Amino acid sequence: MECELSPERGFPAAEYAERTRRCQIVMADRGIGAILFSTEPEVRYFTGFHTPFWQSPTRPWFTVVPASGKPIAVIPSIGGASMSATWIDDVRTWSSPAPDDDGISLLIDCIQEVVDEGSLGVPMGPETHLRMPLRDVDRLRAELGTFVDVTDIISGLRMVKSEREIAKHRYVCGLVSNAFDELPGLLSTGMTEREAFAAFRAEILRQGADDVPYLVGATGPGGIGDIIRQPSDREIIDGDLLIFDTGSTFDGYFSDFDRNFAFTTASQGARDAYRAVWEATEAGLAVIRPGATTTDIFAAMNDILKANGSLGNDVGRMGHGLGMQVTEWPSHTASDNTVIEENMVLTLEPGLLWEPGKAMVHEENLVVRADGPELLSRRAAPELPVI
Amino acid sequence: MECELSPERGFPAAEYAERTRRCQIVMADRGIGAILFSTEPEVRYFTGFHTPFWQSPTRPWFTVVPASGKPIAVIPSIGGASMSATWIDDVRTWSSPAPDDDGISLLIDCIQEVVDEGSLGVPMGPETHLRMPLRDVDRLRAELGTFVDVTDIISGLRMVKSEREIAKHRYVCGLVSNAFDELPGLLSTGMTEREAFAAFRAEILRQGADDVPYLVGATGPGGIGDIIRQPSDREIIDGDLLIFDTGSTFDGYFSDFDRNFAFTTASQGARDAYRAVWEATEAGLAVIRPGATTTDIFAAMNDILKANGSLGNDVGRMGHGLGMQVTEWPSHTASDNTVIEENMVLTLEPGLLWEPGKAMVHEENLVVRADGPELLSRRAAPELPVI
Repeated sequence: MECELSPERGFPAAEYAERTRRCQIVMADRGIGAILFSTEPEVRYFTGFHTPFWQSPTRPWFTVVPASGKPIAVIPSIGGASMSATWIDDVRTWSSPAPDDDGISLLIDCIQEVVDEGSLGVPMGPETHLRMPLRDVDRLRAELGTFVDVTDIISGLRMVKSEREIAKHRYVCGLVSNAFDELPGLLSTGMTEREAFAAFRAEILRQGADDVPYLVGATGPGGIGDIIRQPSDREIIDGDLLIFDTGSTFDGYFSDFDRNFAFTTASQGARDAYRAVWEATEAGLAVIRPGATTTDIFAAMNDILKANGSLGNDVGRMGHGLGMQVTEWPSHTASDNTVIEENMVLTLEPGLLWEPGKAMVHEENLVVRADGPELLSRRAAPELPVI
Repeated sequence: MECELSPERGFPAAEYAERTRRCQIVMADRGIGAILFSTEPEVRYFTGFHTPFWQSPTRPWFTVVPASGKPIAVIPSIGGASMSATWIDDVRTWSSPAPDDDGISLLIDCIQEVVDEGSLGVPMGPETHLRMPLRDVDRLRAELGTFVDVTDIISGLRMVKSEREIAKHRYVCGLVSNAFDELPGLLSTGMTEREAFAAFRAEILRQGADDVPYLVGATGPGGIGDIIRQPSDREIIDGDLLIFDTGSTFDGYFSDFDRNFAFTTASQGARDAYRAVWEATEAGLAVIRPGATTTDIFAAMNDILKANGSLGNDVGRMGHGLGMQVTEWPSHTASDNTVIEENMVLTLEPGLLWEPGKAMVHEENLVVRADGPELLSRRAAPELPVI
């Protein structure tokens, strides 16, 4: 893969207008008068407001998408300047924190302006939550009436990416692929897990990623049990397996893939398990096209893993959507049955227990095109790499 | 400040037992039979389970603190191995994602085992939310009855730190102080904001921080309007002011302080504004002792800012608690009135608009001791540093 130029930051106003337009078409079909969003990805999706400030739990932030016109931001005054620099015109602020009324009366006024009783949409289903005190949720319901669940509206919108979003994914996946390629020169036996994590994180940043919000991994003699651990002071020794799985970002869009390595030597069992997840990924890639389902993808990968003696796994799925969060809808499971559409960005993540307590998980990132998958991560080697 | 040795990672089981014991004493006073937690800091606080996996919105994670005995983890099976390695004995898992019943029936069974109707505590107040679909919250309430708000119980516990927690704060504050000290050698006019951010992030990691989850800042000619921005491609020029504000972590505990710099020259107005927030911080430090209130701290700082011609600010407070999150309860506001206790870890964050559109914010971190504040960040220079 050639070194790519960094894509443009942000999005033109037309991109947010198009997101809003697509949302409002479905809202009109359903008789939804407005949708209330309270979580970072949704507020960013409709407004372009992008800040790590959400890590502070103190202040709620809201965006209301009305049946027509631009979204309305109802936010703490500390964000007023940043929000006013987006495409949003109607920015309503209050001085927060204000524990007795942290934006709630302002939000109620806003919603009552734009929506009738019984037609306020709120995401209430899988992968969603309301980022506000439950006490305030109760107050909203008491004043505004029953919420209508709109999880499928927002998931339907966010799952299908624009070319501008895809370009950001492709770029960060390329950077992380570069960093993984450098790993054999960065890691060696005698390092601690913690040193290995730090070296990898620094390399991803050196390649040009904005941040490495998600980095898990592990080492283990001949195999690895728990693959979502944080690093320890354990020293890497001959015969270890190592897995790194990172969600790194460019302009607020994630990569999410892993790589496995052995140090000095690897057992035949480990090599076979690696080959099995690699082949399972090939099988997943082979079925991906618009019109197939997440369950088709799961089944194709699962067949290969079972044929290779999988003892199962405890992950609960074999890949997922990817976007402004390190995982998004949908999930490749035996019963998910989401229909794959063009321009979905997905991971394939087959995993198996190849011995009791020894897991092997493989992950790639791709975008669905009319004729099949376009890989975003640089395809892993077909045989377990040995450092 | 001398280079300090890295504190021990994690906590002994006795620390979690003590947290649980303190929680259960208040629960007994109130007649609370169990508390349900669904958010990362609370689950980590009681179990020690520490993973960035929470960034994935797919799966809910629960911890139930019963009236007696150890907390119970009700979590997706993907976390079973990690959770079983903590001090927790009772780890109940289900295969997630399972959209039709994502742990809810397992959780209801667990809670019904340990608690009577009407005595289930849930944080429902300021700075809290339930990290689970609202649909599932409704199902819990339908099966378990009314929730009792326990925000004050968990905030009361988390606000007062142990010496082991304080050691982690002190260490990461020292690392970030070192990184700020290196900034004059790392930054220069002609760099873009984005390059400056990347250089600072790399330096904090080089100093030994685990991660830099929170980094905001800005540059501006002669002053800065919006101080929570992400970096742009704007080039730093002579006469710019720059602010960096970072929440960096060691072992899951945050620093949170900022520094201001000028490039080449600074106006008298900027120098005076800097001196005003520095003096306001001195005034805040002077009133901090057990028994004072957050409102006393606010008033002491606000008096200095008003005397120096502050046009106000839009932050809504002048500092806050610090811990496993970059901000925590309490807030230094005109009406917060939280009584300061020994071993609270706090920020002081006075800010003012010194001209329309030009803000100056100063921040330090400290721990409250019996005889007053112990600084955790290395005190900023009393005069605006010029690079």
